[in-house]
Amino acid sequence: MSILNTYSHSDRFLVAVDCIVFGFTNKEIRLLTFKRAIEPEKGKPSLIGGFVQSDESVEDAAKRVLNKLTGIENLYMEQVATYGAIHRDPAARVISVTYFALINLEDYDEELLTRYDAKWIPLSECQDLIFDHKQMVDDAMALLRRKASAFAIGFNLLPEKFTLTQLQSLYEALYCEALDKRNFRKKVLSLEILNRLDEKDKRHSRKGAYFYMLSDDYQAKLKKETYSFSK
Amino acid sequence: MSILNTYSHSDRFLVAVDCIVFGFTNKEIRLLTFKRAIEPEKGKPSLIGGFVQSDESVEDAAKRVLNKLTGIENLYMEQVATYGAIHRDPAARVISVTYFALINLEDYDEELLTRYDAKWIPLSECQDLIFDHKQMVDDAMALLRRKASAFAIGFNLLPEKFTLTQLQSLYEALYCEALDKRNFRKKVLSLEILNRLDEKDKRHSRKGAYFYMLSDDYQAKLKKETYSFSK
Repeated sequence: MSILNTYSHSDRFLVAVDCIVFGFTNKEIRLLTFKRAIEPEKGKPSLIGGFVQSDESVEDAAKRVLNKLTGIENLYMEQVATYGAIHRDPAARVISVTYFALINLEDYDEELLTRYDAKWIPLSECQDLIFDHKQMVDDAMALLRRKASAFAIGFNLLPEKFTLTQLQSLYEALYCEALDKRNFRKKVLSLEILNRLDEKDKRHSRKGAYFYMLSDDYQAKLKKETYSFSK
Repeated sequence: MSILNTYSHSDRFLVAVDCIVFGFTNKEIRLLTFKRAIEPEKGKPSLIGGFVQSDESVEDAAKRVLNKLTGIENLYMEQVATYGAIHRDPAARVISVTYFALINLEDYDEELLTRYDAKWIPLSECQDLIFDHKQMVDDAMALLRRKASAFAIGFNLLPEKFTLTQLQSLYEALYCEALDKRNFRKKVLSLEILNRLDEKDKRHSRKGAYFYMLSDDYQAKLKKETYSFSK
């Protein structure tokens, strides 16, 4: 093999995008999947994936594939990693670039999904996914947790206004562990990234629980820090 | 365009790897580059890059390319991101997967580099790099800083034994800002991740400065937390 292969003498590859879309509802994190439409593993649960074409960037391919398979549009997606093991796809050599996104299921239009073959599954069912998709989900969850521990993300999984109880449920789902309520509240409030609203959520108790929102400053900070590799 | 292109009807791409190798010496972070050997932009400074071939994983391609162009072996590399904009490479459509690595220049065998066309440049000269390599370096630096702020990395840029002054110099170079010596030491020591050795570095003062090493526990923790996507 020559030291530096030129453009014309190098191999070319199928490149896929796989979208890992998380939702949070009823204290549970869920994953959006679809029934694979082609062989091999036709009919098995798969991440929202497809092949990149030459007239689009990799990032645009992810948006197109997500929209074509689920109807979802305008969802902010962040690249997780690229999977390039030789045999990850048994049918052919395919290099896959994964993206993850967070959806607030309360705001989400469920009707849309029923028009497609897309369905939400709990994280606990992810071992049934095809190929190395389970690994991809694990890696995306690890990234999500890392960002959440810096309170840099996770809020997208919640409605714009949320109670501290909802926020705690989310963190308990993310880390698969029960958290001490008082310590959690103390920690979150000490970060000074939330504004307490005058409204209360009275759906679960007569006394009610205050709604909170991310402060404008913190929202601006999050926007600035968000990865947006132009690719 | 059909909704889900099949293996046989999808386009295939040149896939490249680009290695971003940082070194730290004399309070300065440096980047390893080589003189590009093919057109376009022949002779211009480039990241250590090359094309992936079909008989290797993407990760192995990065190791092979690094070794072929610089002689370096057994360097731990971590994937940063994939760059898939249509026109990022003016000569052809190329999707590039980048990796970053940290080298302790004190331990490094400079003779090795002189046998190749590889050279270290200060970060301040990175705007001369070809294509989108400057963006790739910026993104790798952002990742490095994020990890360093959690004291999760950065130590690889230092010798196994280092003084707190050396550690502070590194952080000042990473964040491009002078740090208060007392606060920095207080912070680092409060993390309890370092063991102070009995030896002193007497090269810069008669009194000398204690050498420190990462504690075994912390080294084990870092190993565990390191991304190692099997790709």
